[in-house]
Amino acid sequence: MSLKLDDQIINNFVITPEIYNKFIALFEDRNPLHTDEQFALSKGFSGKVMHGNILNGFLSYFVGECLPYKNVIIHSQEIIYKNPVFLNDHLQLTARVNGIYESVGAIEFNYTFKNQVEKIVAKGKIQIGLLK
Amino acid sequence: MSLKLDDQIINNFVITPEIYNKFIALFEDRNPLHTDEQFALSKGFSGKVMHGNILNGFLSYFVGECLPYKNVIIHSQEIIYKNPVFLNDHLQLTARVNGIYESVGAIEFNYTFKNQVEKIVAKGKIQIGLLK
Repeated sequence: MSLKLDDQIINNFVITPEIYNKFIALFEDRNPLHTDEQFALSKGFSGKVMHGNILNGFLSYFVGECLPYKNVIIHSQEIIYKNPVFLNDHLQLTARVNGIYESVGAIEFNYTFKNQVEKIVAKGKIQIGLLK
Repeated sequence: MSLKLDDQIINNFVITPEIYNKFIALFEDRNPLHTDEQFALSKGFSGKVMHGNILNGFLSYFVGECLPYKNVIIHSQEIIYKNPVFLNDHLQLTARVNGIYESVGAIEFNYTFKNQVEKIVAKGKIQIGLLK
């Protein structure tokens, strides 16, 4: 099986308390927006805002584990955060093949993360290489 | 204290076995490039290649903990992987203020990650917003 232009891959993720707590234990980003409910409320959010880079970790899983190839490496990534993500949000990642560059063994995806009310919370591009 | 154009912030990180193992436990990306020494060697690398998104976790720490502001949120990020990162590599992040957009309360940084032999392993841009 190999990917063609416009193929879509969908994967679901949940920002569980376990993921949130492990991310903080790992990277030690305890910014008050992520850890202080009152601070987040004072800035107009409905609760602690999850770290955007949790979504980049989900993209790591997507590339490493969800593609029909294992011989992959990420060349570049871009992410634009459109709306905040909160604890226990259910996110659906939809990645679409945007370009296949056979001469250099590269594939580019456009992707979105939508939450449980179908709001796009982040979008971007990711380019991978296929290792020979 | 506030940032001005061309200000630089430098921070050092080490890809310890603990960080590597916790990243895998968190995001479950067990792609053989990251977990199978023989596979990585067969693809021409000198050892298991670390997950690029560990560097994005370091950027989370940079934004959340290393700036002279706490009222920050990431708007967007871009990362281009230039060279592989291996276990126990020492990485130096240098972020330079590339633009200050006061009307919208945004700051853009260019950054590089260099390893212990001064080779750039990744570079990119990150734009943050200052929360009112």
